[in-house]
Amino acid sequence: MNHANDSQDFVVTFDSEGLETLASAAAAAIESLRRPASGPRSNVTPSELHQLVRTLDVCPDDGVDLNTVLTEMGSIVWSHGVVASDPATVAHLHPPTLVPAVVTELAIAATNQSMDSWDQSPAATEVELHLMRWLATLMGLPESGSGVMTSGGTASNVLAMTLARSWAAKSLDVDVLKTGLPRGAAQWRILCSDQAHFSVQRAAAQLGLGRDAVTTVETSSSGAMDVRALDRVLDEMTHSGLRPIALVGTAGTTDLGAIDPLRDLAERARRHDAWFHVDAAVAGAFMLSDRLARVLSGLELADSVTIDFHKLWWQPFNASALVVRDVERFDLLRVKSDYLDRGDELEGVVNLVGRSLDTSRRFDAAKVVATLRTVGRLAMAEMLEHLVELSRYAGSRIESHPQLELVAPPASVTCVFSARDATDEDLRHIQQRLLARGEMVLGRTRIKDRAALKFTFMNPLTTTDDVDRLVDLVASELSAL
Amino acid sequence: MNHANDSQDFVVTFDSEGLETLASAAAAAIESLRRPASGPRSNVTPSELHQLVRTLDVCPDDGVDLNTVLTEMGSIVWSHGVVASDPATVAHLHPPTLVPAVVTELAIAATNQSMDSWDQSPAATEVELHLMRWLATLMGLPESGSGVMTSGGTASNVLAMTLARSWAAKSLDVDVLKTGLPRGAAQWRILCSDQAHFSVQRAAAQLGLGRDAVTTVETSSSGAMDVRALDRVLDEMTHSGLRPIALVGTAGTTDLGAIDPLRDLAERARRHDAWFHVDAAVAGAFMLSDRLARVLSGLELADSVTIDFHKLWWQPFNASALVVRDVERFDLLRVKSDYLDRGDELEGVVNLVGRSLDTSRRFDAAKVVATLRTVGRLAMAEMLEHLVELSRYAGSRIESHPQLELVAPPASVTCVFSARDATDEDLRHIQQRLLARGEMVLGRTRIKDRAALKFTFMNPLTTTDDVDRLVDLVASELSAL
Repeated sequence: MNHANDSQDFVVTFDSEGLETLASAAAAAIESLRRPASGPRSNVTPSELHQLVRTLDVCPDDGVDLNTVLTEMGSIVWSHGVVASDPATVAHLHPPTLVPAVVTELAIAATNQSMDSWDQSPAATEVELHLMRWLATLMGLPESGSGVMTSGGTASNVLAMTLARSWAAKSLDVDVLKTGLPRGAAQWRILCSDQAHFSVQRAAAQLGLGRDAVTTVETSSSGAMDVRALDRVLDEMTHSGLRPIALVGTAGTTDLGAIDPLRDLAERARRHDAWFHVDAAVAGAFMLSDRLARVLSGLELADSVTIDFHKLWWQPFNASALVVRDVERFDLLRVKSDYLDRGDELEGVVNLVGRSLDTSRRFDAAKVVATLRTVGRLAMAEMLEHLVELSRYAGSRIESHPQLELVAPPASVTCVFSARDATDEDLRHIQQRLLARGEMVLGRTRIKDRAALKFTFMNPLTTTDDVDRLVDLVASELSAL
Repeated sequence: MNHANDSQDFVVTFDSEGLETLASAAAAAIESLRRPASGPRSNVTPSELHQLVRTLDVCPDDGVDLNTVLTEMGSIVWSHGVVASDPATVAHLHPPTLVPAVVTELAIAATNQSMDSWDQSPAATEVELHLMRWLATLMGLPESGSGVMTSGGTASNVLAMTLARSWAAKSLDVDVLKTGLPRGAAQWRILCSDQAHFSVQRAAAQLGLGRDAVTTVETSSSGAMDVRALDRVLDEMTHSGLRPIALVGTAGTTDLGAIDPLRDLAERARRHDAWFHVDAAVAGAFMLSDRLARVLSGLELADSVTIDFHKLWWQPFNASALVVRDVERFDLLRVKSDYLDRGDELEGVVNLVGRSLDTSRRFDAAKVVATLRTVGRLAMAEMLEHLVELSRYAGSRIESHPQLELVAPPASVTCVFSARDATDEDLRHIQQRLLARGEMVLGRTRIKDRAALKFTFMNPLTTTDDVDRLVDLVASELSAL
């Protein structure tokens, strides 16, 4: 019996013929991305888009020529996306990506290593471990520091809280993963600031503790945790018999970009025997810059740290990591499996499934390594410093603007602002109209229960002239209300 | 102020110059994948590989030329990976990938849409919704059926169990995500077969119920759940005041490829008011084949179904989905966020963050759609049928072999076998030596507490001649013991 008909046209192989097929298909896929410089998105409406996409027959009995399919993807899908490298895409922590990462994604997909076991990813496992050690060293963690790649900041935070929960249970001689939450768990609390990412609540919900087990601590007007408020909360907890099992510091809040006083938090966590996790999804990249790194002082005291490579490291989704100060902490998770990670393999074999909440897992570490080696630390730092400068520049433009007002001075790459005399509904209108017309993908959020607008600068190509134009555009929408 | 120096060399743009840069980098990345046809992996040892990878300076101050970096990735990383399209890669559900998917990955990474909110992925959101509706229809679910993409089968199963837990709590008027596990949760049980994937236990552990809350039901020698055993377990539960909150059927077990009697399970789940989840990560693709689909009878009765596109749909990791019979079930998860999914957007806007345990999320649906449209249903079916044929052929070869013995008749794409008179340690030796020499990446597992070897056929290019060679190679290792 021969191989399946047709399959040789489609299955990726690494001989000359296979690579030629891949190269010509890749060229066609790249050509399908071409679009005129016309703003951050087309002005198609949600319902038009709904109709347009429904014209695609997902799985016809007989296949359609690949070039036709790729061209369609271009005209129906890519041309109606958001252009992350347009200067007017400023809503979210949604970066444009870098060439070395993007072409390495193709290699990752073609070779399809799976990170759960060494015999699906021999070199890839070593590369991920090498990247994790580098990252731990960059943070100033001890030799024992290591980590694992995850699918996103939320997954990294959930993994951290999973470890923290097991750590707390272990102190009661309970294996929570085996026997479930002990009775005393109703007294467990996770602390974070009121500006921390909602994935802290998500994690508590997932873990059976419930969102109500998260106690949020007040922030100052900058958005950073107020340490005196933290001390009050901890005192109250002690008095009422509650146990803080984890304290989560944020290095770069989603809206204001604020960085909690990490050293102070580390000290409180140690004193209360709580796991100290730092969500550095936003500002973790600042470690790369000699100028910016000092704001992260105290990061080296963390039990675990979330790093999102798919934010200010300009990696395509998904690429996140959870780094732990001691690799043995992952033993809290490990369960033997009969077909993976049996513990009786060739000497030196590591099966990463033991560190992860996933099983099959993409080799995302490859794109991070290819990017860092190609771009180099100094150029990465320069791009970061540029974005911080841009947000400060935007802050100064807004501060001096007659109609606009700053909510807080920019602390990293965001600039949150409001308008004098504008209602929440006015701000919503401005953001929605700019989005509908495809002129700007502007951020909108709430700070201390008041609506606000937000620029998030993720694009190193953006200039101060672009910022001027964005501010003018928002102001003219405001005037047109 | 201008854009950051250097950044224009690296940031992906969609004008002529940007696309040219991308195209030439992609060509170099593809060239780095070239390798001689030399078996499933190199014979490098784990410690040699460790040394080799450590020679890479992850992040030098000054970047290295991209072509140099890509060439290095080729010689250090890709050439020491596992070749999923080699006929002797047969250990895991670890597929080679298809050209349309791989080149679409490049487009996904270049455009970097994020699936959490419509204003980061307008067309992409519609494409994912369209794919999910198609999948629900293919399963025979009602009009209300929909789903969400996840990072893997484990994540899909965890999401399903998260929904099941909330569903059970809701019947007690408890919002478990808010207030945590209620007291009665100690009586909750999740049922699955003793051959179900370990991610069911993983989910129970994660959710605070603990692995001990999973009750496994005996399987017949084929590996499928024994319905009489299920009835006994359910009876005992009723008597002892335990509550089965979820029943998990498996369509394609990891080792034997067995498919549980889904209609019978659905009936029991309904009778006991338990969530009926089907883990169809392995055999879900059989829906595409008129010949193979009938084994999935009863799938249309599920409350939720896990589909792994990165298994027998030949997609690169990660690409999985959780499909639910009623899209409103996702309301069990939804929490309003101030900066995403506020509920006051343009008419028709859907923010998929409300269905997902992730926040930022890659547009994996694009590669699935591009693949299905290009290959077409009939060719997909033919490739699947070919793999099922191969596993049957391997089964017949082993059955008639003087030294080897079949553990169970192949039910889908795996063939599990043992050797007469061989100890568990002998089988370990065979598998490890073939792996060490780079001649075969063979599977090894335990069935009913006895060691076994396993062929997993994922590669449509494999022929019966290849199977003959694999069987001979194992037999000659056995003789050489």
